[in-house]
Amino acid sequence: MQAGKPILYSYFRSSCSWRVRIALALKGIAYETVPVNLIKDGGQQFSKDFQALNPMKQVPTLKIDGITIHQSLAIIEYLEETRPTPRLLPQDPKKRASVRMISDLITSGIQPLQNLSILKKVGEVSKDLREETQLTWAQNAITSGFNALEQILQSTAGKYCVGDEVTMADLCLVPQVANAERFKVDFTPYPTISCINKRLLALEAFQVSHPCRQPDTPTELRA
Amino acid sequence: MQAGKPILYSYFRSSCSWRVRIALALKGIAYETVPVNLIKDGGQQFSKDFQALNPMKQVPTLKIDGITIHQSLAIIEYLEETRPTPRLLPQDPKKRASVRMISDLITSGIQPLQNLSILKKVGEVSKDLREETQLTWAQNAITSGFNALEQILQSTAGKYCVGDEVTMADLCLVPQVANAERFKVDFTPYPTISCINKRLLALEAFQVSHPCRQPDTPTELRA
Repeated sequence: MQAGKPILYSYFRSSCSWRVRIALALKGIAYETVPVNLIKDGGQQFSKDFQALNPMKQVPTLKIDGITIHQSLAIIEYLEETRPTPRLLPQDPKKRASVRMISDLITSGIQPLQNLSILKKVGEVSKDLREETQLTWAQNAITSGFNALEQILQSTAGKYCVGDEVTMADLCLVPQVANAERFKVDFTPYPTISCINKRLLALEAFQVSHPCRQPDTPTELRA
Repeated sequence: MQAGKPILYSYFRSSCSWRVRIALALKGIAYETVPVNLIKDGGQQFSKDFQALNPMKQVPTLKIDGITIHQSLAIIEYLEETRPTPRLLPQDPKKRASVRMISDLITSGIQPLQNLSILKKVGEVSKDLREETQLTWAQNAITSGFNALEQILQSTAGKYCVGDEVTMADLCLVPQVANAERFKVDFTPYPTISCINKRLLALEAFQVSHPCRQPDTPTELRA
């Protein structure tokens, strides 16, 4: 068993890492960050040492309680089961289903289609107009997910994604909205998403975990 | 509240639908299938009626207990919480974390990158050698996930993906292996995946839920 603090392998800009950072902040779990720069040196996630830790070559990875967990939602569900306060899943199974449905919509229906490694591959396949193709690809992935999400939220949301408590779904929403902003997505069709995002960004846990305030945030991007 | 049997909106060949069909079979839950043909009529998931049901225009969707759930893992977790026998998640939180990690690796790290709608988009972007590019794209998505999975399974697997009990991870594995076979992936580097897959396919729940035995399976593909 590991005696010290949990260790989070993270990249400041990774939306998947941000999800976990919010969970750790909300639950008040002290941890150490080991930055993995996904761009520098051709991508530090491809180093031999990191691959031995996470064969998927992705962040986040969390070392905690003597085990190593990959995949943001698996990490958050583990934290929820072992550190249940404050809860990130409602008690009612039907509401829990809504939370997981929205979380999965974002983590398997949107983010994987617009992440760095896929955009690289799209660029390789398209050859000409590389950057324009990558931007359009990312925008399409996000807007087709957000079109669905906006509609779903209209029946699940209260103050936040599902009712009036912060849940795992909110931990997925905010980082995905940040990605959408980076890819210059037009938010006019998404008033519900925008409004919930704004409310969440006012909470301290979403601020301390923000990409602009991480140990590995470059000086020029700090806020 | 809905009085009748649960209704599963499913497509025989959809690997995400198959995951849920295995869960329903293992838990002995009787249900009705409403087939949604993802190819016919330009894709029945794009019909106005289906979009009203599932704005993501994807299968599976399950109507159960008066609610409608999308996303295969959200559905399986709901079934697990409301119909816990036989369990698809171990009792130990650390083992549950392994099950969810493997499930998420497949459902967000592999499947979304090789599904029908993405391959269509890859074809549109690449223009020339469309089919060859799509095949290579799908193979790369699967092998890079399977390379990681094979390594992870070496520390988690017993008879099945995590220990000796069938878990949610196994429900994700078998349909993904079937996709890999369809895309002619070479299984030589994946002895653990192959071996677990073979054991699982011998179980009745994996057989009755198989794409070759669904109400919407075309006659020529029946077995």
